[in-house]
Amino acid sequence: MRIGELSRRSGVPVPTIKYYVRERLLPPGELTSPNQAAYGPGHERRLRLIRVLLEVGGLSLAAIGEVLEAADDPAQPVIKVLGAAAKGVTPLEEGESGPELERAREEVAALVGRRGWQVSEGTTAAESLAGVIAALRRVGHGGLVGLLEVYADAAEEIARADLDYVQEAAREDLVESVVVGTVLGEAMFGALRRLAHEDVSVQRYES
Amino acid sequence: MRIGELSRRSGVPVPTIKYYVRERLLPPGELTSPNQAAYGPGHERRLRLIRVLLEVGGLSLAAIGEVLEAADDPAQPVIKVLGAAAKGVTPLEEGESGPELERAREEVAALVGRRGWQVSEGTTAAESLAGVIAALRRVGHGGLVGLLEVYADAAEEIARADLDYVQEAAREDLVESVVVGTVLGEAMFGALRRLAHEDVSVQRYES
Repeated sequence: MRIGELSRRSGVPVPTIKYYVRERLLPPGELTSPNQAAYGPGHERRLRLIRVLLEVGGLSLAAIGEVLEAADDPAQPVIKVLGAAAKGVTPLEEGESGPELERAREEVAALVGRRGWQVSEGTTAAESLAGVIAALRRVGHGGLVGLLEVYADAAEEIARADLDYVQEAAREDLVESVVVGTVLGEAMFGALRRLAHEDVSVQRYES
Repeated sequence: MRIGELSRRSGVPVPTIKYYVRERLLPPGELTSPNQAAYGPGHERRLRLIRVLLEVGGLSLAAIGEVLEAADDPAQPVIKVLGAAAKGVTPLEEGESGPELERAREEVAALVGRRGWQVSEGTTAAESLAGVIAALRRVGHGGLVGLLEVYADAAEEIARADLDYVQEAAREDLVESVVVGTVLGEAMFGALRRLAHEDVSVQRYES
């Protein structure tokens, strides 16, 4: 199909599509003449994915680029794609340091050891967790850190279910499943948690 | 203290502090002369909170403003503050519609009914959940919707633990606990989930 039809079908304006191609988020169409390119269903699907990661997942275009690059490389092991997706959804600022962060890193390492989790040291998610713990203490809400074990129990159950889902997919869909599952799965869980908050607070405060 | 000291203690530049005051994120200092204002520990604490919501929570300044406004109003019931915090962490774009979203809304209502959750109809979290479900189908990953019940089980457990934590706080701290717990608790859980992902995928794919 021509770029105009791709735009109509995906709801993404033509200049935006061209911008995505320039930024290598979307592969270029196949040239049918010097000024014309043909696009296929793969382009349409990729455009939908970009929009969803952007609008529902709240990822930046740079993060989406990294995630898609990992997803497009057939040599990438699943775990690397997971890492790229995790990095994309982590809004933690770089460059933090100090004794609070050091202490938080030790706590994360202890938690990982206690639970027997096989994760590489200093992995993005571990750094992100340490950053959140340090931030909680900085704003005087270190008490929330006491919920780590309850959260970790729930996280384990969800991770098993996620990977069950991902395992059913073919390799080509697998990387995309991982990306979508990480980003949208997080949004889905966040919404459910807030719904449950509302229910529990009605029970406790309005009865 | 003077604004310079507040800046030094909080690590927030003076012009940024002034900007937050203009935007009503931070209450103005007490005027000690026509050109000078005095700030207290409450200002310092508030500044830290704003920075954490911004940097770790990934909230926009507009969302932080709404959350703090709810938190500052002593007449606000806890549940309203929860709602404002939930709204702040929801990156869903407005203006979506269509049969997919309608169908997703019905599924959310069915889930809420099945679990006996007492939540108001059309609440932000429910809308957000419906949006995520519709988005999953749009990108061809409707299968993830099958994990709703597993996610909901985990969400319920976490919500109970969250509210236990919040209940221990005094009313003044309570609203802040709710805000911090919602925003940073979400970041903490997301990091744990990604750690658990890494562990489960190592077990399944590298052994």
